[in-house]
Formats: sequence, C-alpha cells, structure tokens
Amino acid sequence: MTIYEIISKKRDGFELNPDEIREMVLKFSTDGLPDYQMAAWLMAVYFRGMTSAETAVLTETMLHSGDLIDLTDIPGIKVDKHSTGGVGDKTSIILAPIVAAAGVPVPMISGRGLGHTGGTLDKLESIPGFRVNYTIPEFRQKIAKIGVCLIGQTPEIVPADRRMYALRDVTATIQSIPLITGSIMSKKLAEGIDALILDVKTGRGAFMPTYERSVELAKNLIGVGERFGKRTAAYITDMDQPLGNAVGNWLEILECMDCLRKDRDDDLMTLTHQLAGAMIYFSGKASSVEDGIRRSKELIANGAAWNKFIEIVREQNGDASFIENPQKYPKPTFSFQIRAGQDGFISGIDALEVGLVSVSLGAGRMKSDDVIDPKAGILLHKKRGDRVSAGEPLMTIYTDNHAVTESAAQRLLKAVTISAEPVQLAPLIRTFLDKHNC
Amino acid sequence: MTIYEIISKKRDGFELNPDEIREMVLKFSTDGLPDYQMAAWLMAVYFRGMTSAETAVLTETMLHSGDLIDLTDIPGIKVDKHSTGGVGDKTSIILAPIVAAAGVPVPMISGRGLGHTGGTLDKLESIPGFRVNYTIPEFRQKIAKIGVCLIGQTPEIVPADRRMYALRDVTATIQSIPLITGSIMSKKLAEGIDALILDVKTGRGAFMPTYERSVELAKNLIGVGERFGKRTAAYITDMDQPLGNAVGNWLEILECMDCLRKDRDDDLMTLTHQLAGAMIYFSGKASSVEDGIRRSKELIANGAAWNKFIEIVREQNGDASFIENPQKYPKPTFSFQIRAGQDGFISGIDALEVGLVSVSLGAGRMKSDDVIDPKAGILLHKKRGDRVSAGEPLMTIYTDNHAVTESAAQRLLKAVTISAEPVQLAPLIRTFLDKHNC
Repeated sequence: MTIYEIISKKRDGFELNPDEIREMVLKFSTDGLPDYQMAAWLMAVYFRGMTSAETAVLTETMLHSGDLIDLTDIPGIKVDKHSTGGVGDKTSIILAPIVAAAGVPVPMISGRGLGHTGGTLDKLESIPGFRVNYTIPEFRQKIAKIGVCLIGQTPEIVPADRRMYALRDVTATIQSIPLITGSIMSKKLAEGIDALILDVKTGRGAFMPTYERSVELAKNLIGVGERFGKRTAAYITDMDQPLGNAVGNWLEILECMDCLRKDRDDDLMTLTHQLAGAMIYFSGKASSVEDGIRRSKELIANGAAWNKFIEIVREQNGDASFIENPQKYPKPTFSFQIRAGQDGFISGIDALEVGLVSVSLGAGRMKSDDVIDPKAGILLHKKRGDRVSAGEPLMTIYTDNHAVTESAAQRLLKAVTISAEPVQLAPLIRTFLDKHNC
Repeated sequence: MTIYEIISKKRDGFELNPDEIREMVLKFSTDGLPDYQMAAWLMAVYFRGMTSAETAVLTETMLHSGDLIDLTDIPGIKVDKHSTGGVGDKTSIILAPIVAAAGVPVPMISGRGLGHTGGTLDKLESIPGFRVNYTIPEFRQKIAKIGVCLIGQTPEIVPADRRMYALRDVTATIQSIPLITGSIMSKKLAEGIDALILDVKTGRGAFMPTYERSVELAKNLIGVGERFGKRTAAYITDMDQPLGNAVGNWLEILECMDCLRKDRDDDLMTLTHQLAGAMIYFSGKASSVEDGIRRSKELIANGAAWNKFIEIVREQNGDASFIENPQKYPKPTFSFQIRAGQDGFISGIDALEVGLVSVSLGAGRMKSDDVIDPKAGILLHKKRGDRVSAGEPLMTIYTDNHAVTESAAQRLLKAVTISAEPVQLAPLIRTFLDKHNC
C-alpha cells in the first residue's frame, strides 16, 4: 500500500493493519514521510478513531522508535503515576517521595506545562539548581540509589512521539483518544515500569471535554497497558476547580512542602493519598488500596516522606537550603488580592480560567518556547463549598508584570461563582477503572 | 483567529467566516502557511464539509488569487461546458466546434487526464503540432477571431487551485464536494463566461462514487455559479460504461472526426447534442434546448462544425494534414483483439477498469509527470445492450508495450459482463438540474 492509500483507508473508516501503521509512524519519524501526509492522516485518525488493536500497534511502534529503559536489575515492582494534566495538580511531587519512602521504586518521566495546565518539570525546576535532564544511565543509577528519580523525556525515549506531538500541536489533532493513548503509553512503557496508576481528569480544567470522553480515554489507556502486561488502573478525578490552593510553580512547591511536613485533609491530599495508596498496593507493599493509603499517611506522619523529598532535591542537584529556608526565595514584585463581592458559598472556581490567568501572570506558557517566571501564580484562599463574606479575600495574584494584574483580577473574579445557598460538593474521585470493569 | 483556531473550528463543525477562509487560502497560496496545516484543514473540510456560503467564499478567494479573463469586448453570450471526467468522454472536442459554428463564443480551459479518466488537452495534443499553452491575450484574440479556443490552465489563472490541488492529490482530500466545487468553479469563473453547462458523471467510471453524491456536487456547482451571476445548469449522465467507442487520445480524435463528419445515433452523440443544444440555448441562439439540439445536428449535417474543427486545429498550430489524411499517423506496434466467450447480450462494461487498463497501455497517467503514448488505447466494438456471439470481437487493444497486452486482455475480458437475456438499458441522461430544481 502506498502512503496515499493508507491515508484514504483511514479516511474511509477501515481498520489499518499493523504494517500500515508501522509504515506511517516509522517513515515519519525517520524523515521518510512529508509532514503534510502525516498531518492529513492524523486528522483522519482524529475523525475515524482507532480500534484497540490499531492503538496497540501505534503504541508499540512509537515505543520501539527509541530506546527502552531496562530496570529489571533493580529489585521491586516499579510503579509510576501519570496524570492527564490539570491546574494546581502537584500530586506527583508529593506522592513520589511517599511511595519511594514505602520502598517502591518510582521511575518517573514527567512533562512540562502547556496552555492552561502546569507541568511537574517546571514546578521542580523552580527549586534553584534542580535538574531534570539526566541521561538514562544516570536515571537508572539514581533509582537504584534512592528509589526514585523525576526527569523529562530524553532524546532516546520515543523519538516518534516528539515529532508526532509537535505536528499534532500545530494541526489541531491533539485531542484524539488513540493518539493521546499512543503518546502517553509509549512513554510510560519505555520507563521500565511494572505497573501504572492513571489520574484522568474531568471537568472544566481537564484536557478531555466531558466525563464520558475521560472514561473512554482511561479505558483506552488501561487496554494498552494490560495488553503490554503492565498492571494498569485509572481514577477519573475532578478538575472543575484547581487542585489544592496554589497555582504557579514555586507556590506549588511550597504547598507540596507544607503537605509533606504536616499532611492535610483537603482535596489535594485526599487525591494524593488515594494515588499513592494504589501505587503502594500495586507494588505489593500493601494488602489493599486502603492499606496503601494508611501507609501513605504514616509516611508523612513519621517524616519519612519529607526526608525522601529532601533526598530527591539533593540527589537531583537542587539547593536544599531553599527547602529548609523558603524565605530566601526571591519575591514577586506585585501581589494583589481578589475579594468576594457578596456573602455566600463558593459554588465554582473555573479551573480553565484560573490556569489561563496564571499563564498571563508568567507562571506558564502558551508556546513551547515561552519563558516561565517560577515566582508567578495564584493562591486560592477559598475552595468550592467554602462559606465566604463580602470583602473577604478569595485569591492572591503574584507576578512581576504589573500590566496584567488588573485584567487578571477581573478575570479571576468572574471565574468564581458564589451562591446564596450552601453548595452540594461533587465527588473528587469519580470512578475507579481497571481491567475488571472496562 | 490563529491558523490553529481556524483548523479547530472547522474540525469541530462550525461555519468559518469569510475572513477565516480567505486567511487559509491566501496565506497558503503565497507561502505564508505550512503545507501540514493546510493538509490538516483540508482533511477537516473533507469530513465536515462546507455550507454554501463557505463554498462561495472559498471559490471567490481562489478566483481572486490570480487574473480574471475579461471577454466583455467580444460580442455574444459566452458559454462553456465542464465535465467531471470519465472514460472515453470526448464531447468537448465535438461540441466546441458545433457551438462555435452556431455563433456562440466558447472560451474553454480544459484539463489533463489523471488516473482512469482522460483529459481534453491530452487528446488535442495527440494532433501533431496542436498547442494548448497560449497566453491569456492570445486566448482572447483567438476567441475574437474564430469564436473558440481550447487551452490549459495558465499560471495566471487561479494559482491557489494549482497549489491546493497538488496538496489534495497527495493527502487523499480530492473527493470533497466543497473543495471540488471551489476548484472547478474558480477556474470556470476566471474564463470570462456568462453561462456554464455542467456534465456531472455518475457510475463506475465517475469521480463521485454514487448517484446521490453526483447530484449533491451538481447542486453545489450550480449554487456557486448562480451566486456569481452566471447561468448554470447540470446534466447528471451515465459513466458506468465508457462513452462512445474509443478510449485513448488519438483514437478519440479519430472518433470525434467521424462524428463531426457524419453524425451518429449513439450515446456519445446523444450526449454531445444535448450539451451543445443547452449551450446554444443558454447563449440565446435557440428558443429552447430542443431547438438548440436541432441547430447542433444541422451544423454537423451542413459541414459547418467540421469546418470549424479544421479551423480550430489550424488556429492552434495543429498539422491539419493529419486530420485530412489520418493514415499518415504513426501506428501502434501491437494490436490485440478481445473476443466474447459466450453468446448473449452485453450487460456491462466497467468504465473504471477500461480506463485503468488504457493507462497501463500508455494512454494515460497515474502520476502527473507520466508520459502519454497518443497512439495507445482501446476500441470498443460492442456497447451495453448489444447482442454478441461467442468468438465475436469485443474490443481491440493498441499499444507499443507488448509486456502489458496479456494482463490488459485478461482484465478487459473480466470488465465485460454478458447476460443470456436482453438487457434493459439504463438512461444515458439521468437528470437535468438548474436553479429551479436545486
């Protein structure tokens, strides 16, 4: 089959055979296929979708476009967590030290923020000196030494994804479930994991527009993970309002430190313990997810998770003096409080809008080469369900760019809805999915 | 709106506004838009279609990407005919001299063959010396002088279409009704016509896969033509079997000469007279289509159409001695007869397969830079409905390439179906559509 025929076949809704999928992906990733033919094929895939067999071949082909990390000589069941991205989602930075402190090896390759969503790498890099660009041998060596390492994608890992993602990003073909599945799972399978916990977000600030699409994505991810022999499960979790109270890189690191030191009973820690508990259970270090959650809470209470966090910072070249003494950190030039205009109960905080405003403050990027200001961001003083009085602070904005504060304040005020009546809270964790129910 | 947002908007099924369509087409035709973004947009248009307002703006933008031919100083209502292409369709070459002989100016910009379909330009160029690459001033001057000129697209006419078509051709986005409409109508509107007769083919050898899609295309073409103030009508005509008896460039010229000299009562001339009659009627030189058909037949009977044909050949640099004495023409090295294996009635001759086999003989091209052998082709001795006896010749193959004759013969034999019972003939002209019934 020619490339033209492969594009036509997908366009007309037929299932591609493995050779046809391999032809597209491997030729494209080795300069043998023009961008315009790949772009047309990606848009056809966007409209026609892929069967689970096609998605598995896509993932496998992408996976084998580069090197695979072999962690078999490190003892233990290696578990990672992947989130589809949200606003204020810093769970990775809290659960990685918890789970590693439980004795579970955690090989974690994370991403950067783009658009309204933040990225674990950007948050970690707000710690002065913190490095995320280690080689694969260095990554392996750090996991062997301290049980955990958090890095960015290396050039050797799934090069096909880098090229395909760059093209999808400019051709409006990002939001295709099989393409997302191939992209996520090829990178996760390359990490050398044995099991994977997925946090698939749903709601205004989530990548997927509806709950049904989030469930569909989760099922696709689980299907591919299990097909490759990796125990895979997913939680569908709320991203209607930001997670936790901080949005912005260093602000989020401060929040992580707060949670690691004295735990909290809020949405952020409920979700973090749930995911950590599942990881610990999947690793065989707990008898159930609930037992894993108990272990997770213990590891915060006894200081082990905090110590592991310091150990990670030091191992990855971070300046731990900023962790021990955060007052040293540079301060943003401007801060500005947004206050409630009426008495009532917070019924919604639009996560998408909060994410976009935080980008305008300097905390994120709209294009991949935008520069991030680690100090910029937003602190939320109230969350959904909270009672509020007129004049009470809702949020504080931090930025070096005075020009944007007024429009940011106006947008954030509109992003918060206040109701006269007490608010019925939607559940944070909507669904649990694994191979038994999908 | 950014290009990304315009792609997303079309992908999500929203109507684009005129500025958004102009942005895509004009940027693309002036190197301001990468091929891959245009390819993704074209595939999104393929799936989502376009409203009639969008299609009109697309056509208008493509039209104004280049020069418009102004024929207002040539007296008379200028009429052209456009066919969506088929196998053995040489009606343009017969009706252009007929209609011009009726005193109607015929500015005709035609195309080349691609895939299984033949092209008027390739057929004309099989006449030694015949030129189709005149400049716009030369085109105007020849129409003023002899009332007709048949040329290919010039670089000044609709440059956006040339670029878009080349990209559609490699991205499997040819068969989109709004994109076809924009491509056809922008070129026809640039010709300086006042009215247009469309021959939209349906059946195995047609461009559109189903009758319904052919009707939909015709309605789109008429809608755009009328919106631009050009009287436009369409016939939906059969392309299940080849039209006439010759397939292949010089073979078709010979058939045209035969028809211009002594008329015929077959499918080819039934269609030619219908289209010519409509053109003469639209020009105001007949009181009805039927009256136009009578004029058309007269102009063959009285030799005026034949004389006009000779005049065209001479005016366009053709060597008329080959018209007057076709025996001079080089002969193909090989000829081979295909014979009926049984008695019966011809129930079908697969036009697509006949077209593809004629390409394999050298009569057409699969890629735009393939070289055509003007002598190559197929003569059909029987047509649908004809009675045939076992052993009687069905077709004759002509080629210089002996290697392909055997497979060609086998394929052609399979392309003909013979039934024991007499065959009910499907109508040649299925429907007439104009602004009153679409």
